[in-house]
Amino acid sequence: MGAVTTVRGPKQDRSRATRQRLLEAAVACLAEHGWSGSTVTVVAERAGVSRGAAQHHFPTREDLFTAAVEHVAEERSAALRAMLSGEGAVQGGNAAPGGRTRAVVEAIVALYTGPLFRAALHLWVAASNEEQLKPRVTALEARIGRESHRMAVGLLGADESVPGVRETVQGLLDMARGLGLATLLTDDAARRDRVVAQWARILDDTLGRGPGGTGGHGDS
Amino acid sequence: MGAVTTVRGPKQDRSRATRQRLLEAAVACLAEHGWSGSTVTVVAERAGVSRGAAQHHFPTREDLFTAAVEHVAEERSAALRAMLSGEGAVQGGNAAPGGRTRAVVEAIVALYTGPLFRAALHLWVAASNEEQLKPRVTALEARIGRESHRMAVGLLGADESVPGVRETVQGLLDMARGLGLATLLTDDAARRDRVVAQWARILDDTLGRGPGGTGGHGDS
Repeated sequence: MGAVTTVRGPKQDRSRATRQRLLEAAVACLAEHGWSGSTVTVVAERAGVSRGAAQHHFPTREDLFTAAVEHVAEERSAALRAMLSGEGAVQGGNAAPGGRTRAVVEAIVALYTGPLFRAALHLWVAASNEEQLKPRVTALEARIGRESHRMAVGLLGADESVPGVRETVQGLLDMARGLGLATLLTDDAARRDRVVAQWARILDDTLGRGPGGTGGHGDS
Repeated sequence: MGAVTTVRGPKQDRSRATRQRLLEAAVACLAEHGWSGSTVTVVAERAGVSRGAAQHHFPTREDLFTAAVEHVAEERSAALRAMLSGEGAVQGGNAAPGGRTRAVVEAIVALYTGPLFRAALHLWVAASNEEQLKPRVTALEARIGRESHRMAVGLLGADESVPGVRETVQGLLDMARGLGLATLLTDDAARRDRVVAQWARILDDTLGRGPGGTGGHGDS
């Protein structure tokens, strides 16, 4: 925080911090109480911000919640990229490709099984019946979807010029979304781990890096 | 209907028909208006049934909507089994295994992309925040999940005694669920078809029936 303070005025900092608190409270509120229990007033209270200040940042309920889901999605995917590039550097080029793929699949699936996904799910489902919300959430979902796909391709080192690879990665992201849904009502972690382990093996085979694949080490 | 009429009294028939109309109206209502717009009164009106008659069949809102999703899920999976056993008979044992797998994957994915899935999704998401609904929907989801898995294993002719096969089929069902979610706000059919085609190929390879697999014909 110190470094930022030196280049911005304290007023701008406060405004930025308020906005940040509102966005995080909005995601937590959506995840816990769903769309019908999530209003600007409830979020302002949770964030310890006056209703007027909240409305200064986000004039409508739709503004607040779509911005919140987008903000947290961006933060999460930046954290994911950082984590995995750090991990790649530690393991170096000698890591078993299977281990790397599994770590990537685990990290992608983790994006869809936390409070952010739960919040996004409430927003998507509400948008399917609310005309005011639908176009904004549809556009947001398309942006997040494209970004997730780009990220997954990069992390897996997948070559999309090979026929079928694009659809393989898309199917993986659909599976991650389905695993997120499966965890909505019950703790599905043990089953999910086994599915992730198996589908990481399948991905390595399909992307040509498993035992016998062109990019694999072939002896484990 | 004729055959049923001979073994039941007309009063039982009317009661059965009323119940059926209520269940179907409940699913359509959930899919269109979500949980917050779905009450016993709205469904009774839609089904052309008095509110009293509706409450005779389903004392609470939770009774009505969980029974509705369960009923339609059973009908859909019975129809799927019938359709695919008919198709199997037509194609016979000489059909390319890839074609059969793709038909099965398409049929399973279709279960998750229609109004039933949309209705179930509204119910699940509502249950995640409503204590009255949660235990019933959790139990219902577990029953539907087990039945879907059993059905998928049977239709794919998958041998679950082989390590990894169980998780392969589970991952496929998770993917189908994710594809259902992707179709909530936009028409995702073209992308979905390509993902299904690719993942049917991957499944054939993984289950050992693709070109080069132990059960395949190996020359196409």
